[in-house]
Amino acid sequence: MNTQALQLGAVLYPGFEMLDYFGPLELFSVVGSAAININTVAQHRGPVAAAIGSEGAIGPEVVAQYSFEDAPAFDMLLVPGGSGTLTELENEVMLDFLRTQSKTAQWVTSVCTGSALLAKAGVLDGHRATSNKQVFVIASMQSDKVDWVEAARWVEDGKFFTSSGVSAGMDMTLAIIQKLWGDEVAEMAASYTEYTWHRDADKDPFAKELNVLAKQLGMV
Amino acid sequence: MNTQALQLGAVLYPGFEMLDYFGPLELFSVVGSAAININTVAQHRGPVAAAIGSEGAIGPEVVAQYSFEDAPAFDMLLVPGGSGTLTELENEVMLDFLRTQSKTAQWVTSVCTGSALLAKAGVLDGHRATSNKQVFVIASMQSDKVDWVEAARWVEDGKFFTSSGVSAGMDMTLAIIQKLWGDEVAEMAASYTEYTWHRDADKDPFAKELNVLAKQLGMV
Repeated sequence: MNTQALQLGAVLYPGFEMLDYFGPLELFSVVGSAAININTVAQHRGPVAAAIGSEGAIGPEVVAQYSFEDAPAFDMLLVPGGSGTLTELENEVMLDFLRTQSKTAQWVTSVCTGSALLAKAGVLDGHRATSNKQVFVIASMQSDKVDWVEAARWVEDGKFFTSSGVSAGMDMTLAIIQKLWGDEVAEMAASYTEYTWHRDADKDPFAKELNVLAKQLGMV
Repeated sequence: MNTQALQLGAVLYPGFEMLDYFGPLELFSVVGSAAININTVAQHRGPVAAAIGSEGAIGPEVVAQYSFEDAPAFDMLLVPGGSGTLTELENEVMLDFLRTQSKTAQWVTSVCTGSALLAKAGVLDGHRATSNKQVFVIASMQSDKVDWVEAARWVEDGKFFTSSGVSAGMDMTLAIIQKLWGDEVAEMAASYTEYTWHRDADKDPFAKELNVLAKQLGMV
């Protein structure tokens, strides 16, 4: 491990959304391990199964290097969304971990319904934040002390970066890379991954789908 | 396992590129396991480490459910790229696996330098195909019997779908979903993941970067 590098704690839980997690990790990986070191962490060490759509935790397994108990204090947190979020909202061990790590982390980031977990843990209170558009209510119902932004690809507020659903995490990550390592590195990361970067945080083509899926599921 | 579902064999090897793999798997996961079942497969069962940029195999580990030896014949193959491709090009066990599975698979797909492996295995001979733009030569040098397309987001030729670098795998996957399950399902998958779908296979904003990285590395 390069101790000069920024230490990213990328949080796993059963039923995490694959692209929420690996979109950002892909882009951070291109920046290189001299600058940022990717650490995988979950409640328990070992394999953690991804979500398959809205079906739950039956997807490919990713290995957590650290458990919440043995994890060091990370410089940056990444909290993905996914159908497993609903279970984790009731998991005090997860919420405690997010609360503790968020106190000392320089940067706290989430993709999709990951912001619901941060909001439930109370760490977004007093901040602006966003979440997945189709199930926005899952996040917004967790705290009325958060200034929820319904139309945003991602929201930056202090040390918090929260993004809209799934792919939006990649645009947010490029914005973080740009902020920490400059425009040239962000351009290189987008070019290396042949990704068309959506640079405007406020341009949100999916805002019109606010709570579409939540309404279908009878959640609102 | 739903035996009515199309069985996807998603190939892992040390130094695979994270988004090459999880971009397509994310979109297939949204289609649902009643339609397509994701199987992870590698030379050996167990954890396989992803690439970190061009640094090699030191990234997060993903668990292979099947080894090449105990894998069933899959209906569809997915071959990702990544810096580990260079090692796998000399791995006869990998090339044999790709050759054998490609004979019976209904669909054979690759992202990025994954097409270099398919070309080396000889399965793309007589077909049109594409690859990552920055290191195009890694694929094109594997066979002169492949009709290599330098400007394409992805190329469909018979049962073969090959895409350009990393993110292009997502546009290719949406095209596959559209072909197999219709436009509405593909639109749903793009919308669920808040992904702006690039529908035009021939529109390639990254073609101008042909072999940029390969030239920097002194490969051409």
